[in-house]
Amino acid sequence: MKKVAILGIGQTKIDEHWDKSLREIGGEAAFAALQDAGVEHVDALFVGNMLSPLIDGQNQLGTFFADWIGLWKHEAVKVEAACASGAAAFRAGLMAVSSGDIDSALVLGTEKMTDKSGHDVTSALATAADTDYEVEQGISFVGINALVMRRYMHEFGWSHADFAPFSINAHANAMHNPYARLHQKINTDQFERSSMIATPINLMDASPIGDGAAAVVIVPAEKIVSMKGKPKITVAGSGSATDTIAVHSRKDPLFLSAAQESARRAYEMAGVGPNDIDVFELHDAFSIMSALSLEACGFAGRGQGIRLGLDNEISPNGRVPVCTRGGLKARGHPVGATGIYQIVEVVQQLRGECAETQVEGVRTGMAQNIGGSGATIITHILQSE
Amino acid sequence: MKKVAILGIGQTKIDEHWDKSLREIGGEAAFAALQDAGVEHVDALFVGNMLSPLIDGQNQLGTFFADWIGLWKHEAVKVEAACASGAAAFRAGLMAVSSGDIDSALVLGTEKMTDKSGHDVTSALATAADTDYEVEQGISFVGINALVMRRYMHEFGWSHADFAPFSINAHANAMHNPYARLHQKINTDQFERSSMIATPINLMDASPIGDGAAAVVIVPAEKIVSMKGKPKITVAGSGSATDTIAVHSRKDPLFLSAAQESARRAYEMAGVGPNDIDVFELHDAFSIMSALSLEACGFAGRGQGIRLGLDNEISPNGRVPVCTRGGLKARGHPVGATGIYQIVEVVQQLRGECAETQVEGVRTGMAQNIGGSGATIITHILQSE
Repeated sequence: MKKVAILGIGQTKIDEHWDKSLREIGGEAAFAALQDAGVEHVDALFVGNMLSPLIDGQNQLGTFFADWIGLWKHEAVKVEAACASGAAAFRAGLMAVSSGDIDSALVLGTEKMTDKSGHDVTSALATAADTDYEVEQGISFVGINALVMRRYMHEFGWSHADFAPFSINAHANAMHNPYARLHQKINTDQFERSSMIATPINLMDASPIGDGAAAVVIVPAEKIVSMKGKPKITVAGSGSATDTIAVHSRKDPLFLSAAQESARRAYEMAGVGPNDIDVFELHDAFSIMSALSLEACGFAGRGQGIRLGLDNEISPNGRVPVCTRGGLKARGHPVGATGIYQIVEVVQQLRGECAETQVEGVRTGMAQNIGGSGATIITHILQSE
Repeated sequence: MKKVAILGIGQTKIDEHWDKSLREIGGEAAFAALQDAGVEHVDALFVGNMLSPLIDGQNQLGTFFADWIGLWKHEAVKVEAACASGAAAFRAGLMAVSSGDIDSALVLGTEKMTDKSGHDVTSALATAADTDYEVEQGISFVGINALVMRRYMHEFGWSHADFAPFSINAHANAMHNPYARLHQKINTDQFERSSMIATPINLMDASPIGDGAAAVVIVPAEKIVSMKGKPKITVAGSGSATDTIAVHSRKDPLFLSAAQESARRAYEMAGVGPNDIDVFELHDAFSIMSALSLEACGFAGRGQGIRLGLDNEISPNGRVPVCTRGGLKARGHPVGATGIYQIVEVVQQLRGECAETQVEGVRTGMAQNIGGSGATIITHILQSE
């Protein structure tokens, strides 16, 4: 497989952008990435998006954005894997550039979620679960994750407050990320007193939705002559794996086997292991998912992911820094865009652009994007050369 | 780019499958393709689908089907490009196998459209057009194509009856395809007297929707030791291109520039031209699209695509056989599945499995799938070795 490098990155602030259309948000991130890459043109566009048919009444987003940003005639396509749509689009672009058929690609993750009522958005998000066997029972997507969290607490003996460090870390880091949705520090007391959504998941366990877009430009690594002072960042590893779509079909609902498998493939391709990962942008859609991801990817034993938070190992100067730009919890979770935000943030770390939340001496970073409740999991490992 | 071969094909009859779920239809085609390929397992699954979020309330179809057909742990993803979703998924699979990262893939195109009212389906199909600037005006997708057809008739001086041969040929060929939705021969009189949908498009100009799925198994060509008596079929050319999403934004609304560009790329990769194409499975969603595709791909001059029908050159023993299994018009158009049906049908021709509609001495076949009204166009050229 031909090695691929990330030439440019772009992102919008995640917010309720009622004054901007789907087109405008995606275009903003796309143009920022092209400008950062110093190119005006790419061969193809890959768009990650989950909800535009349901929220915006718009399909065919590949061509929709190619048209809007002036990539006329060029190949363009949308890739969807629920909340893992961003990383899925990145991987599709990676495969196309690696194959040699195209020489450059823009990968755009974008989502506009706040133009509909909360009820409509909750229904739309439930399309990530199994419609016939989960949603038909009347359970929402957060409800499914709540059952997993409850079982985890029971099985391994943790209390709700033990999850607090994940959200506290995310909120603290987001304070220094101008693109984050929430700029508000929280403490354990606020974490515990927050409004309940689906017991035991409260508002501080759950990531906020939002409107946002992020983009990257990728090219074959061999084509890069100079990065103009910036480090050259390559995709060292990539792995995608799945599990049953319904949580109840799994032998062990408390283990993310697709995270383990996709991380295994990415580690193997990169020739690294968990100890080599300097920063890990994980998919903390709910606080329970942080614990499960850390465990499945080899950073903690079964039921012990929680301990990394309690031992203060997840902050930017800890052993396993996670969510250094705020994670889904505080940077925000515009679902189809999230996977690209994660990759953009790992690039920022590798470039040393993260100021207060910069991880020292970072050389290898990992981004992991999850679709459904652990159903589709895609892991990428980036390295600076 | 590593050469890729098609090892197996599968399809379901297109119909109103009220007794079968989305899962069952897709599974039927997937298992048929795996069985035809003689394999039990592939590395990854690529699903082409347009409407499942809107019609079935189900997203994440990659994992949904990987789960259903027993590809646990394996990579799976959905690709969407409106009615070109099938070919877009095929191209994504092609890139992944070509890159060397995976060694085999199942590509499944699937659509379940008849579980909702005609009004709901018409609204869902309109998401292929530009929601802000076309659909907002109250026009339907067929309405947009009707404007194009009317303008073509005016500009080049053709009457409505001049389009009849396309539909007559499609219906005649579908008589011999057990998987086709319609088994009913038509004549010019029936074509002319059919119910009007959106002037000048009547029922006999338009393809019927339906429930259906088609699938192919692809592997690196070098891996094939024996095809057990069947010819080895390789993907000789592949090209994807786009145009503006709204028809009114084009300088020339009567020329499919994305068809020209995607065909040019496919011809170039395959080292062939229009004269080398023995069979052409084109995207006759409406009769006008047959004429425009033939013109853009180099088979006829501007405004002269019609003549190929009138001169009887499009039948299985004509110079440019099209829609040899019934095309969208009579085989049916389960939108996200259509692109894979076209590829399956070209494989059937190359294998010599088409009996009454077999094209003699066929060595090179082309399939072209269109998303929106000419917005996303993807062309593949297959050859038997």
